[in-house]
Amino acid sequence: MTDAPGAVSGPTPSAAAEDDRRPGTVDLLGAIAYGALTAFERLAQDGAAAPSLADKVTLATIAGAQVDHLRRVRGRLTELGVDLTAAMTPFHRAFDDYHAHTRPRDWLEGLMWVYVGSGFADDFYAEVAVHVDDATRTLVDEVLTDAGQDDFVVRHVRTGIEADPRVAGRLALWGRRLVGEALSQAQRVVVDRAGLTALLMGGGGVDVVAVNRTLSRLVENHAARMRRLGLQP
Amino acid sequence: MTDAPGAVSGPTPSAAAEDDRRPGTVDLLGAIAYGALTAFERLAQDGAAAPSLADKVTLATIAGAQVDHLRRVRGRLTELGVDLTAAMTPFHRAFDDYHAHTRPRDWLEGLMWVYVGSGFADDFYAEVAVHVDDATRTLVDEVLTDAGQDDFVVRHVRTGIEADPRVAGRLALWGRRLVGEALSQAQRVVVDRAGLTALLMGGGGVDVVAVNRTLSRLVENHAARMRRLGLQP
Repeated sequence: MTDAPGAVSGPTPSAAAEDDRRPGTVDLLGAIAYGALTAFERLAQDGAAAPSLADKVTLATIAGAQVDHLRRVRGRLTELGVDLTAAMTPFHRAFDDYHAHTRPRDWLEGLMWVYVGSGFADDFYAEVAVHVDDATRTLVDEVLTDAGQDDFVVRHVRTGIEADPRVAGRLALWGRRLVGEALSQAQRVVVDRAGLTALLMGGGGVDVVAVNRTLSRLVENHAARMRRLGLQP
Repeated sequence: MTDAPGAVSGPTPSAAAEDDRRPGTVDLLGAIAYGALTAFERLAQDGAAAPSLADKVTLATIAGAQVDHLRRVRGRLTELGVDLTAAMTPFHRAFDDYHAHTRPRDWLEGLMWVYVGSGFADDFYAEVAVHVDDATRTLVDEVLTDAGQDDFVVRHVRTGIEADPRVAGRLALWGRRLVGEALSQAQRVVVDRAGLTALLMGGGGVDVVAVNRTLSRLVENHAARMRRLGLQP
């Protein structure tokens, strides 16, 4: 089919907006999926070290919820015609480096790893999700709903500090280390993934001031999470 | 309330049968739950060592199905008024010893660990489940349905043998070691858990000949699974 002279060619404006958002949307879903897989692996490892059978069951349940998120994100990617592993691949390095640079030395550090890392990442996704299509946003809102892990971590860390107040200093340092590494990986993603960053900026131009303002919000949320643990941010 | 002279006292015959089956039913559900938790942990560890991202996703999905089984068995135990961890506790030793005595040395041995162990255990549960109440039997039938893991393991082991035929001998030995350990733990459970064993015998008396006949059937099924892998049983 050829266009008649004067005919409107190209996609309609709304379809064009959809196309603009597509790379960032696929990136968002890929990052959530790889993050869910990473959290699943860590939660399963934490479960193996859990002090009681009830804790093992709880951690297995939370880990299972991550697999459910992965399955649902895969479903949305399939609707968009994108392969799950292809969407996840750009995020290997950020997540695996976070993983490699922050090795928990005990059970409480392992719990904080998930709490701090997932909390930070989920806030990042929530900022991006404001600007995606409705179907994707609904899905993201649902999978970002806390599967009960925050209460579980808060309870265990607070109990751990009560039992031995000296651990508070070490865990506070650990929290700063975790968020520092998360920030560093987020910066890398912002630089590497132009589509995602454009979405994060609401489709406007990307500038370092706006990016930094977003990251500052994430750090403030992190500080609130640390205080909930009874720890100095 | 006191019984009038001559009144029928005690439960009705069918309620009495229900009561007789209750300890074994709770044991069956506890064993399935603890087995699911154990399989979840092993699958998550195998996933961490998986050669490709697609394999990681598949193993995470299969591990997630184990968590779903755990959740559903917990639901049935709650209906029966039994706490999940209380029901699982009698089976720690058998599963943990199986775990401790059979440490996979690589990815293929890890896959076979789940395939042989879950296959054997599921056959055992299926023999018991013939004799439980309808609601429990329906649940057990559903959770014993293979979540796709058998095909996954068969494909990987066959590919591994094609790539290096020398591994076939080592894996065949490994399969024998696994089923030997599984038999040893099954024998222990049969001796320790009278209610479960009575169910396994269909409510009739327990004798060593009948027990051994059951275990022989399990070994025959194991041999068929090994042949499916392309391995000498």
